[in-house]
Amino acid sequence: MIVVGELINASRKAVAEAIEAQDEEKIKQLAGAQVEAGADYVDVNAGVFVGQEADYLQWLVQTVQDGVDAPCCIDSPDPAAIEKALAVHQGVAMINSISLERDRFEALLSLVAGTDLKVVSLCMSDEGMPETSEERVRIADRLINGLVKKDVAIDHIYVDPLVQPISTSGSFGAEFLDAVEKIMTGFPGVHTMCGLSNISYGLPLRSHLNRNFAVMAIARGLDGLIINPLDKQMMANIIAAETLAGRDNYCMNYLKAFRAKRLEI
Amino acid sequence: MIVVGELINASRKAVAEAIEAQDEEKIKQLAGAQVEAGADYVDVNAGVFVGQEADYLQWLVQTVQDGVDAPCCIDSPDPAAIEKALAVHQGVAMINSISLERDRFEALLSLVAGTDLKVVSLCMSDEGMPETSEERVRIADRLINGLVKKDVAIDHIYVDPLVQPISTSGSFGAEFLDAVEKIMTGFPGVHTMCGLSNISYGLPLRSHLNRNFAVMAIARGLDGLIINPLDKQMMANIIAAETLAGRDNYCMNYLKAFRAKRLEI
Repeated sequence: MIVVGELINASRKAVAEAIEAQDEEKIKQLAGAQVEAGADYVDVNAGVFVGQEADYLQWLVQTVQDGVDAPCCIDSPDPAAIEKALAVHQGVAMINSISLERDRFEALLSLVAGTDLKVVSLCMSDEGMPETSEERVRIADRLINGLVKKDVAIDHIYVDPLVQPISTSGSFGAEFLDAVEKIMTGFPGVHTMCGLSNISYGLPLRSHLNRNFAVMAIARGLDGLIINPLDKQMMANIIAAETLAGRDNYCMNYLKAFRAKRLEI
Repeated sequence: MIVVGELINASRKAVAEAIEAQDEEKIKQLAGAQVEAGADYVDVNAGVFVGQEADYLQWLVQTVQDGVDAPCCIDSPDPAAIEKALAVHQGVAMINSISLERDRFEALLSLVAGTDLKVVSLCMSDEGMPETSEERVRIADRLINGLVKKDVAIDHIYVDPLVQPISTSGSFGAEFLDAVEKIMTGFPGVHTMCGLSNISYGLPLRSHLNRNFAVMAIARGLDGLIINPLDKQMMANIIAAETLAGRDNYCMNYLKAFRAKRLEI
């Protein structure tokens, strides 16, 4: 399971303020806490700062990697901003994200072609957001083939099938879960990765739904999550789910987490 | 979702003591608390009392139904004990359980043939406990067909695919989950029902694993659980899981549970 810590996102007011104030300590603290809690990548997003996104994104990468020994997940649709951030990034970054929307696809493809970059690939096309698992798989197929043709290794691709709110349609959970299974079994070596919180949009106690949906998705093969790793219950659920899904040899990871008191909330 | 409350089981020391002391208040209290917490059936088991099981089982049914307006799940492999309990049961009971083991199958079949009784049907045969989903489905097929031929309606049958410990084999979770899905889609109208706690045998913090496994099983179609309904986290997980699985029109049940404070642990 690859965990991307989502907290350094300028859509959060405290983070936007820290970025504007160039508060290195605050950003390092947020990065450190997430890595300590189990994040493999630290997401960095400065999308709200129109015109300054590239500069801020670069500063975020530098600041995060001054504080922690972990790669960043560079969260922007803008190739120029990503390129600027990559110029200072140590190690292999994850790009969040490409999609099948024509302009975005072409622009990002030239950036990742032939590289070792990890690429989050959204199941979104110019026809909009898919609703059924079949539509998701069709878009995933075109994304994966487009990337592989440009020398992106299949195991560097993280397909996000895109969650839609269960409050809108009772079938949206099942369609997403089916898509995860079909993508993971249909394209051996590929990964799936997503933020789950859209599933609970419009409902109370959203974290309760998000945590349970994560467990369902892991059971169907999901192996990447963009989440708040400081949510201890979520992290404990992920560990149990991986064990139950048979992705934990001799339950060693579960036992290790138990001894480290990561399972008791 | 059908919830069977498992607490009135003589393998629990306090319950065995209450049965021996014929402590009606204690049994009524245990039944009432479970129904209040959401149990649809109250399991009654007096299996540890060799020679007295039938008498005690009858007393348990009478005592439980003096206290609550709910049917019992009569938990015994012995047709004579079940018959004695049924003689005093009000409403339609659930029998727990028949299996494909020849002696048990023949004896229980004559008891349930042509009745409206609900029947928990274990995927166990004289060849022992199945390991793969295919073995489970083969046994389920023979159980379901055997019961239906004797005029048991398919929607009165609750197949228990039998959970085995994930500590024994990493594939045991997936095999069980696959069996649930195959049984629910392959035999329209049938139910699945099980106790889950075997999944966590040999591991620490068993309730954490059990609760997460319940969520996975509900996502695959499981619609019955034999559990401790006083476990608030488990009940909250079940409610969220049913909503996420698309079995909650307009999320009404989730919202109702939220307002009743059944989701906040």
